[in-house]
Amino acid sequence: MTTASVERSITDQAVQRRVIIIGGGFAGVAVAKSLKGINAEVVLIDKQNHHVFQPLLYQVATASLSPANISQPIRTVLPRSAGCQVVLADVKSIDPDRQRVFVDGGSVPYDYLVIAAGASHDYFGNDDWESIAPGLKTLADATEIRRRVLLAFESAEHEADEESRSAALTFAVVGAGPTGVELAGAIKSIASKTLPSEYRNIDTKTARVLLFEGGPCVLPGFPEKLSQRAMQDLKRLGVEVRINSRVEDVTSDGVTVNDTLIPAQNVFWAAGVKASPLNTAFKSHCDRAGRVRVHSDLSVPGYSNVFVVGDAAAFVPVGDTSPLPGVAQVAMQMGRYSGQVIREELTRGESKRRKTEFKYKDKGSMAIIGKNRAVAFVGGFQFTGFIAWVLWAVVHIAFLVGFRNRLRVMFNWAIQWLLDSHDARLIVGENTLRIVQPAGEGVEVDPD
Amino acid sequence: MTTASVERSITDQAVQRRVIIIGGGFAGVAVAKSLKGINAEVVLIDKQNHHVFQPLLYQVATASLSPANISQPIRTVLPRSAGCQVVLADVKSIDPDRQRVFVDGGSVPYDYLVIAAGASHDYFGNDDWESIAPGLKTLADATEIRRRVLLAFESAEHEADEESRSAALTFAVVGAGPTGVELAGAIKSIASKTLPSEYRNIDTKTARVLLFEGGPCVLPGFPEKLSQRAMQDLKRLGVEVRINSRVEDVTSDGVTVNDTLIPAQNVFWAAGVKASPLNTAFKSHCDRAGRVRVHSDLSVPGYSNVFVVGDAAAFVPVGDTSPLPGVAQVAMQMGRYSGQVIREELTRGESKRRKTEFKYKDKGSMAIIGKNRAVAFVGGFQFTGFIAWVLWAVVHIAFLVGFRNRLRVMFNWAIQWLLDSHDARLIVGENTLRIVQPAGEGVEVDPD
Repeated sequence: MTTASVERSITDQAVQRRVIIIGGGFAGVAVAKSLKGINAEVVLIDKQNHHVFQPLLYQVATASLSPANISQPIRTVLPRSAGCQVVLADVKSIDPDRQRVFVDGGSVPYDYLVIAAGASHDYFGNDDWESIAPGLKTLADATEIRRRVLLAFESAEHEADEESRSAALTFAVVGAGPTGVELAGAIKSIASKTLPSEYRNIDTKTARVLLFEGGPCVLPGFPEKLSQRAMQDLKRLGVEVRINSRVEDVTSDGVTVNDTLIPAQNVFWAAGVKASPLNTAFKSHCDRAGRVRVHSDLSVPGYSNVFVVGDAAAFVPVGDTSPLPGVAQVAMQMGRYSGQVIREELTRGESKRRKTEFKYKDKGSMAIIGKNRAVAFVGGFQFTGFIAWVLWAVVHIAFLVGFRNRLRVMFNWAIQWLLDSHDARLIVGENTLRIVQPAGEGVEVDPD
Repeated sequence: MTTASVERSITDQAVQRRVIIIGGGFAGVAVAKSLKGINAEVVLIDKQNHHVFQPLLYQVATASLSPANISQPIRTVLPRSAGCQVVLADVKSIDPDRQRVFVDGGSVPYDYLVIAAGASHDYFGNDDWESIAPGLKTLADATEIRRRVLLAFESAEHEADEESRSAALTFAVVGAGPTGVELAGAIKSIASKTLPSEYRNIDTKTARVLLFEGGPCVLPGFPEKLSQRAMQDLKRLGVEVRINSRVEDVTSDGVTVNDTLIPAQNVFWAAGVKASPLNTAFKSHCDRAGRVRVHSDLSVPGYSNVFVVGDAAAFVPVGDTSPLPGVAQVAMQMGRYSGQVIREELTRGESKRRKTEFKYKDKGSMAIIGKNRAVAFVGGFQFTGFIAWVLWAVVHIAFLVGFRNRLRVMFNWAIQWLLDSHDARLIVGENTLRIVQPAGEGVEVDPD
């Protein structure tokens, strides 16, 4: 092996500045792309080797798509020609005063830092709910929800006790933002269209999907007319929508809402978010969700060389009261902007810096409810039904990473549209059931 | 929920006989299909919910295909119309005298039993090698090997010590049957064609792939000319083939062959097989690999109502000395035959039983070495190079479960052929690295 020509991991050109980006999601990748060709060492650190197209995670959770369909290695998104080093590592902490990032095994200094580390779920102080009610942020979350959904039907098939069978076939989704709405709609679709011909002892169409929302409508943040329409569409599909319903408790028996226990074997969480714990380096500037309240140029108060972008940031536009939502568009625009600020500063020097502030250009929002049904708010226009559904599909295909993934996803969707199939129905991980009460001749049941 | 019409899991029609099939691989599914429409209760039990097309597992292990591309839910392969109950459960043991199968939670009686429980790896008494050198039998094995292969390049990228970097880029494959040959060829292809543009500090082309075989040639069982050709093709691709090389030890440092330690971070096992532990119910009839030495009608000596088929069986054809190999064709033909025996017996009564014995019709064997290169032995004819490669692809597509999977796999292969891409490069599970010695300005390394 000739290694003489091998460059070293982190170069020793002492004169070059180093920009570290933490996170390879929408925001982090946008930063890296906008720094292409810059005269500085750019390092992107992520604990996963892949970039995930999060808006389609619910389709992995409901067995429409495979994990690889909606993800790509970060190295492929940012190949060597992008001029960015990709490092697979878990960032443990940040020391902004020493300008260092700590990873397992050591620390690396930076000149500029962009935190794009995203967010996880918030259970409003009830951390014990997490293992019972998984959320949907990563591919691992998605395959876990898929496993639970598919196992629910398997266990119901062999459950002789009617109450237990009914609980197995009850799915509760908490939170009616786009993720909750899409997840609830897709679970109901599988149960009523894909599975009926495959089970003998249960009628999968009887499966109940309940969608709980603490506020007065589904899809908060959407125009009222679209919220109303989404609620109608969900009901028509068979989803039981419960607005003004705050979940008071989650146990393995089910969810408690308005002092009433609703038995459910599966609860999925699409409610609160909590920003990355890396933000604690700037604790005094964090809001209740742990997001850093950034300056108008997305930098952290007191540290003009540190930027926070994407779900980890709380940016309140001028004249507004609440921060921008944690969606892909916001993350990408923030990432691009922070990259441009760094580029200008490195090119022209600090004096020319930050004349403009970050301005978010809202391109619209959309949510899919089921086959041929969606709501979309684009360029001030409202769309519903089939047209919104086509718009949704076109936009999501257009923004999906990788040309080849686009073709694969289009193919899978076409098949699914024609046949109501959900082909990625793999249960991975723990999956065997205890046969509790298999009625039938000669069957012996072990005492518990 | 109306449950009045719900049939029960295991019916109580006392007059009906019950056939239990253990395993939903090639053999088990073939049994179930050949029993379609029979006047008996047919129950297939598997601990996974999906049927896997094992001949393409190595493509999941090498990031060409997604797990869902080569698998289907057993319920989809055997829908309600197939007349077979599918049960997701782990069979713990069999009591052939009481005619009972034990699962977690109880036991179920049978009139006929077909054991199609397959085989796992055999480490020739060195069970401690298993965690170091995983084999390739299940989807979980495949994603584990994929994880290790991809992590090897990630760790090499940030390894400053030349010896460690060299070990990280050395892959040892033990056993040169079709699985070993295909795995070795595919790993070398990724390293030399797919990855080079994505790493900055290493030249992935320098990765070494060693293929160890205890016997005198690769692909034992193939005609000698094809074995020779496969060996040449492997060498041309850059795989280092070591025949007559028995592996003496496997540790985390590497493999020991002929008293020499070859440093390798990754060792993959494609050597021996060991039949399912369920076979121990018939211990006195098992061979060294734990396979049951079945009668000429595939039944177990002493139990004419119990059949063993597929990899779990040792069937020696008349005039032959060694049992049939553990391949898909053998499993499918055995499964079909045992189903026919049971069907005839249930239809015409036991007196008419078993006039014919199982005869295996060998349709040929093939193995792929790399892009445009394979060897095939079909209908007495030998094929090599591009023609064999096309044959291989056509046959594997034709036998792949599910029309939709066929289209997906063809699409993936076409893309891969054109672009040398391996798009399913997902590292799932434990994946972060300790940055050991990142050379470079200002980097601090924690003491070990």
